[in-house]
Amino acid sequence: MTAHPLTPLLAPSSVAIFGASNDPTRISGRSLRYYREAGYQGGLYPINPTRDTVQGLRAYPDLASVEGPVDCAVIAVPANLAIESMEACVKKGVRGIVMFTAGFAEIGAEGRAMQERITQIARDNDIRLCGPNCLGLFNMRTGHTATFSSFLEEGPTPSGPLGMVTQSGAFGTHLLALTARRGIAVGMWMSTGNEADVAVADGISFLADDPETVAIACYIEAIKDGKLFAEAVARARANGKPVIAMKVGASVIGTAAAASHTASLAGSDAVYDAAFRQLGVERAKTPEDLVEIAYACTRGRLPKSRRLAVVTMSGGAGVLMADAAEEEGLELAPLAEESQKEVLNWVPFAAPRNPVDVTAQALNDPTILDKGFELLLGKENFPSMVGFFTTWASSPQMAEPLFKSVSEAAARYPDRYFALSAIASPEMQRRYEACGVGLFEDPWRAVSSIGAAVRCAERLATPPFPIPPVPQNLPPVPPGRIAEHEAKRILADAGVPILDERLATNAGQAAAAAAGMGDRLVLKIVSADIPHKTEMGGVMLNVPAAEAGKAYDELVGRVQARAPRAQLDGVLISPMITDGVETILGVQNDPVFGPVVMFGLGGIFVEVLRDVTFRVAPFGVEEARQMIGELRGAAMLEGARGQPPCDIDALATALSKLSVFVAAQKGRFTSIDINPLRVRPKGQGVVALDALILTPSEVSGDDEVAP
Amino acid sequence: MTAHPLTPLLAPSSVAIFGASNDPTRISGRSLRYYREAGYQGGLYPINPTRDTVQGLRAYPDLASVEGPVDCAVIAVPANLAIESMEACVKKGVRGIVMFTAGFAEIGAEGRAMQERITQIARDNDIRLCGPNCLGLFNMRTGHTATFSSFLEEGPTPSGPLGMVTQSGAFGTHLLALTARRGIAVGMWMSTGNEADVAVADGISFLADDPETVAIACYIEAIKDGKLFAEAVARARANGKPVIAMKVGASVIGTAAAASHTASLAGSDAVYDAAFRQLGVERAKTPEDLVEIAYACTRGRLPKSRRLAVVTMSGGAGVLMADAAEEEGLELAPLAEESQKEVLNWVPFAAPRNPVDVTAQALNDPTILDKGFELLLGKENFPSMVGFFTTWASSPQMAEPLFKSVSEAAARYPDRYFALSAIASPEMQRRYEACGVGLFEDPWRAVSSIGAAVRCAERLATPPFPIPPVPQNLPPVPPGRIAEHEAKRILADAGVPILDERLATNAGQAAAAAAGMGDRLVLKIVSADIPHKTEMGGVMLNVPAAEAGKAYDELVGRVQARAPRAQLDGVLISPMITDGVETILGVQNDPVFGPVVMFGLGGIFVEVLRDVTFRVAPFGVEEARQMIGELRGAAMLEGARGQPPCDIDALATALSKLSVFVAAQKGRFTSIDINPLRVRPKGQGVVALDALILTPSEVSGDDEVAP
Repeated sequence: MTAHPLTPLLAPSSVAIFGASNDPTRISGRSLRYYREAGYQGGLYPINPTRDTVQGLRAYPDLASVEGPVDCAVIAVPANLAIESMEACVKKGVRGIVMFTAGFAEIGAEGRAMQERITQIARDNDIRLCGPNCLGLFNMRTGHTATFSSFLEEGPTPSGPLGMVTQSGAFGTHLLALTARRGIAVGMWMSTGNEADVAVADGISFLADDPETVAIACYIEAIKDGKLFAEAVARARANGKPVIAMKVGASVIGTAAAASHTASLAGSDAVYDAAFRQLGVERAKTPEDLVEIAYACTRGRLPKSRRLAVVTMSGGAGVLMADAAEEEGLELAPLAEESQKEVLNWVPFAAPRNPVDVTAQALNDPTILDKGFELLLGKENFPSMVGFFTTWASSPQMAEPLFKSVSEAAARYPDRYFALSAIASPEMQRRYEACGVGLFEDPWRAVSSIGAAVRCAERLATPPFPIPPVPQNLPPVPPGRIAEHEAKRILADAGVPILDERLATNAGQAAAAAAGMGDRLVLKIVSADIPHKTEMGGVMLNVPAAEAGKAYDELVGRVQARAPRAQLDGVLISPMITDGVETILGVQNDPVFGPVVMFGLGGIFVEVLRDVTFRVAPFGVEEARQMIGELRGAAMLEGARGQPPCDIDALATALSKLSVFVAAQKGRFTSIDINPLRVRPKGQGVVALDALILTPSEVSGDDEVAP
Repeated sequence: MTAHPLTPLLAPSSVAIFGASNDPTRISGRSLRYYREAGYQGGLYPINPTRDTVQGLRAYPDLASVEGPVDCAVIAVPANLAIESMEACVKKGVRGIVMFTAGFAEIGAEGRAMQERITQIARDNDIRLCGPNCLGLFNMRTGHTATFSSFLEEGPTPSGPLGMVTQSGAFGTHLLALTARRGIAVGMWMSTGNEADVAVADGISFLADDPETVAIACYIEAIKDGKLFAEAVARARANGKPVIAMKVGASVIGTAAAASHTASLAGSDAVYDAAFRQLGVERAKTPEDLVEIAYACTRGRLPKSRRLAVVTMSGGAGVLMADAAEEEGLELAPLAEESQKEVLNWVPFAAPRNPVDVTAQALNDPTILDKGFELLLGKENFPSMVGFFTTWASSPQMAEPLFKSVSEAAARYPDRYFALSAIASPEMQRRYEACGVGLFEDPWRAVSSIGAAVRCAERLATPPFPIPPVPQNLPPVPPGRIAEHEAKRILADAGVPILDERLATNAGQAAAAAAGMGDRLVLKIVSADIPHKTEMGGVMLNVPAAEAGKAYDELVGRVQARAPRAQLDGVLISPMITDGVETILGVQNDPVFGPVVMFGLGGIFVEVLRDVTFRVAPFGVEEARQMIGELRGAAMLEGARGQPPCDIDALATALSKLSVFVAAQKGRFTSIDINPLRVRPKGQGVVALDALILTPSEVSGDDEVAP
């Protein structure tokens, strides 16, 4: 197995520090101090031309003076010396650079130019560059502490199962402080700063391969390359590691603040949300959520299914945890009759169903705990259990009996997920954690964290939906204006069914075309000058077949009156379809993720409720089916209000085919709208009744033809 | 001012303890120990016939032997001795009893009978009874500790501004532990157990009057008397105290568990939710939320408006807090141009708008903090400010400079709401809190807590919406089956407009009735035997006026064929209304809150999206307007999709009138449905097109008339 490309950055055998200060409290001195405190065993070379020694280590006047090889360099010099330092690194054969230095893209045009230069130097010389304008990174497996984060000021942090990648050094340091207070050990941490080269995705990718990393937590403001991110998450998933991400910038002001902060174009938050779902990233909404989910995912085991046993000494807490379980989609399967009787034998006034409320009776008879845990994990075979024991975990009377029961049960069933809601001293907390049992003060939080852990486990246990290949020979979207019937023909070739329709250029042709199309017809004007036909009176619905010729003249007359300068190419005639449900499909090019397919129900669902969902193209029918199910109004397609169920199979196929088609277009369209796509009753397929493709070489023609 | 009725329970001058044990660790001994540790200064009389002294105090063989008066008695004896103890209390003139004893309504029929007996004794003798089956209560203002909650095992808790009322003693104890860890002092606490007499509402009412209580937190499983609860919350609101409630049992399993736990019929969670909104209760979803909102509301001041200044040393945290602010409806007003320039003078790379990101520059120049706070609170006059300063609050370099700046700013502007997101030692945390500044580790939580505090402040700053009086002379709903036209007539009298409609009993009358009604008519069968007319073919829509006679015969014939045994009273003829938006009004009798009015939009909104909202009757038009605005589809009424805005004034009036009418009925109906009520374009009012009133003396007649 070849080493990961980020190895020189995150696991180097030797490190040089440019600008290493003798003062261990200064930014330029901290990293060196941290290395020494963390016991880094590799070569460590302070570069400082003004001193013989720095913090007791031999100092080198320049990188060339270092005798042995140097894998990684930390650059903490002012911006005007950064390029010089990089060139020295190139000469020395350094393969990883961590650049703290600020004053690049974040300060404007001049800085941007300088950032492009250092990026180019890195690319040309096969150097991976973290930063600039970052707080660096650490790997506590080796004591590699290329960071000046204040988090290490009070000494090295223990290595551990969580990996963390952050786009904000300051906020990433805050997250380190929060995880440390929660008792989660972060083994590797990387802040990516301006992401001139190394991005969040690279960090995820490295952690995906790191054997000691169990879960990966990310703080994200704006992903630059959606494809790279997707590949990294897929790698983590393949290697059995949940990726938990907090992505900020969902609000109007937040998005603006994020853009100014990261100097990169952020995509829509709704698209991030969809992409995270699609890739299997567990999205955390708040820092608390991120920390608690990371805690739940680093207990050494994950829940095997959604079945959950709740055991409690307070009826109220049982109710609360049942509420939380329902919200999380966890299943509180009731105990077998026989087991319920057993519980009632121990505690006559127990609630024996699930939640199992053993009341405070265990204060008098602690064997109830042993018996209860054994019943739930043994006979009832629950894969997960959460117990509410409030302050018992710290009470003089109950702390040890409770710990004994819990730790023994956890040892007897090492594959089960066991969480407690209890208040304990930090020492007792660590003792439980050493047995693989997580502690949560809030019983709701205990259950919601299990819910997140279950979702993570489910993703890791199932392969991702297959992504269909994008054939090379798909027809390209042509440049220029595309008329409706051309747009539909293109989409039909792509696999989105359309109606039998005929173009008529006079009333006689219209009458002829109508023959055999059914009783009622739709007539639509065809003109590349009129993208929004309805507004210009260019659509006639429900026309009796016998009146097609007359309707042709009326329609053309009406449109000519309103848009005298528009060139009319004729009238499209097609059958009138009224069955099924109206839906809307759209495609936009997201700056982060590329072509993104939108799906929603028509009418009030999209106009009033904004009930739409997204997926990054390309995707398969399984993914499309999930997408459809996410709509609040999904029941409309399943046969609500006495209607027959719709052809969801055909809809999923059309969505997938559309996604494959747009993935092949490489910027040849700016947007695609299929509005409406009618989803007909089951077995009868879908039909696009109208379609609009805009290309980069044209804009909407409304202004030109409006009177 | 007369003393509150609960004074003998919560602030007694003397206390007797039945069954006081000499063992201070036993349930029957703990309360006495707690009294002595808390320094209770009133008369304290252990009742124990087997000993001369108990825990060093003189013991009395019975209550009669106590020389002086006794305000309050704690009863900790077995259930079979409880009545005897109560009778002794009656003789002694005790006015408050706290009964720990279990074995009453929670164990079944026998216990229920015994509970009824003790309740009756209390009622007959003007005694307020807390419990039975409760953990008691405490009032740390006086050291009155009539509880065996383990919370006081480690010594008395300091008195403080939060009052807490809980329906679960065990979970209430957990909440005490959580609030104590958060640094919130609970001055008074009451667990209500079986609520034989004293309910959560009584506790709220007492705390509303208590001068030292600043905010009231509640844990609720099921309210027994909605009216009493409403009065107590109104009292707290009038006295300037926010009520924060966590109510469990929203889920299917949770509701069942709550019912078995409290042995009382819980109303629908959706109705609780509506009632809380209506009364101005801040609902907390989780224990964490309850604790954090209580923390935010006990800082000695509340936010004066939704305008919020965010100041941060991390751009990422600024983005996050902007997201949180948008979700909470807080307004991050941008700083004036001039102020923004000032910020840029101090820190050239700051983000000066709001969030104001001063970057880590304050590490080098702490005066930036003073200048920044002064700018935001002084010149910019923000009523609230939140600052993100991560670990600075505990760092050797920054802890003191930051505290100095913050505490001085808080002192200069004592009416402003000032919160920090920072990680500090418990001691530093207490120092900030002493200045009125709240600390939150999670910046999102800091903002969401401010959001809750703003909502609480807004409620306290505005009087509740006026509740219309319920006149005595409203017509009663008659008993028995009520035909559609009678139901509409009743509702019209109540103030819900109906259409001009006429009853015809033959085709000739139908033709005559149609004259002058408009072009298109609706014909509906009238029969008390057919409550669901449409299903029986009993409705004809869009009938041309000229064909009314013919339609009469067709309609009657159709219904007779399907329901030959139904007695037909004729056909109702009315104009066909097609403009406006279809809505649904309903009324149910909630077991907790009484008549509750439901409102929703028709069609998919109610059938697919379950987009409905509730209010407890009676309520005024302002409340009705809020209710209407809560619907997800509210835009439909405001003129969505090119339609004219609807007559929301008329709708609000109809909702309010309906609520007043049903509030007067006192059980004379079981349900009322107005489906549809058409809300016509602005100025044209609303009309009930169909109505169904069911009364207790009848059930749906479908079964009887179906063939």
